[in-house]
Amino acid sequence: MKIIKNKISKRDIILREASALFKEKGFGSSTMRDLAERVGLEAASMYNHIKSKDELLEEICFRIAGQYVSHITKIESEKSTYTEKIKAIIRFHTRLMIDDAASVAVINNEWKSLSEPKLSQFTTLRKGYETRFAALVDKGIAEKEFSRINVSVAVFTILSALRWVELWYNPKRKISEKELEKDIVNLLLKGLKR
Amino acid sequence: MKIIKNKISKRDIILREASALFKEKGFGSSTMRDLAERVGLEAASMYNHIKSKDELLEEICFRIAGQYVSHITKIESEKSTYTEKIKAIIRFHTRLMIDDAASVAVINNEWKSLSEPKLSQFTTLRKGYETRFAALVDKGIAEKEFSRINVSVAVFTILSALRWVELWYNPKRKISEKELEKDIVNLLLKGLKR
Repeated sequence: MKIIKNKISKRDIILREASALFKEKGFGSSTMRDLAERVGLEAASMYNHIKSKDELLEEICFRIAGQYVSHITKIESEKSTYTEKIKAIIRFHTRLMIDDAASVAVINNEWKSLSEPKLSQFTTLRKGYETRFAALVDKGIAEKEFSRINVSVAVFTILSALRWVELWYNPKRKISEKELEKDIVNLLLKGLKR
Repeated sequence: MKIIKNKISKRDIILREASALFKEKGFGSSTMRDLAERVGLEAASMYNHIKSKDELLEEICFRIAGQYVSHITKIESEKSTYTEKIKAIIRFHTRLMIDDAASVAVINNEWKSLSEPKLSQFTTLRKGYETRFAALVDKGIAEKEFSRINVSVAVFTILSALRWVELWYNPKRKISEKELEKDIVNLLLKGLKR
């Protein structure tokens, strides 16, 4: 049991360092040698834990995508107003960016480097997520919670604003996590409301 | 005079095609040969009109940056409410993206490829623009036109949302330019208002 436990945790460290490395240098410019150095392993022994650089990117992208999908599935099934649902989604995006900034940056900027068939699977997942998000906005308009607005404009404006928080949010700005979360929710949700 | 006129217009064509090429392939992967082919010139005669690939990127980035700066200078000097000022800025970003999508994409995605000292000049310009935008939001809060919100969160949320319109807005979505402009202004401005 101990061996298995160690293996899992070494793999987690590799994945965490891979996110940080891909964010910093980009997937294309990152080598397994760079990664081995960060993790403190010989390049050759990395392959006891992972198959390839591609596998790392896949695992990061699909792990994060999976978290978004699980969250929206939970939100859809909850008995709550559409305002509360969209609020929860905005908050979730903000929170994930704060908690796992490197992986969110990788999924935002490096997903195009996925190889087929993973690339197509990923774009299908993302498209599905956007469609489900759009359906919630659409129902919110139908229920007269939100103003009459083009649903695509609303969804992509919100997702774009959230997607790029990782580019500008940093400790130098002295904005607390709580303030960030509250103000982003306020800005984007108020924009939707009637 | 005729020769000068022809030279200017050939240069304009080269710049337009350079924007389209850099957007499509990225600055790093674009060659002068690719560009010559698009323009319909021999690669060698391109150099009668421009010095280098770097010069093209500089001209695209600084031309667009100059348009943003001139616009905010005009807006600052106008006798209008801060709501009207921010509305005009949001509208200007949207309009520029519609009218010159390729150049806006280049300035968004390829500015990091500028060489020094142009790179530093560009980041200074951009920082200055963000600061002036922030000052307008700040004054709007002081005048009680806008709700009390962290100014950086407001500015970067709005700029992020606007910056990435070029990624998702396309004819397939069947959203008219007018609808896009109206809905983005509504969403983002309503988020700010008290």
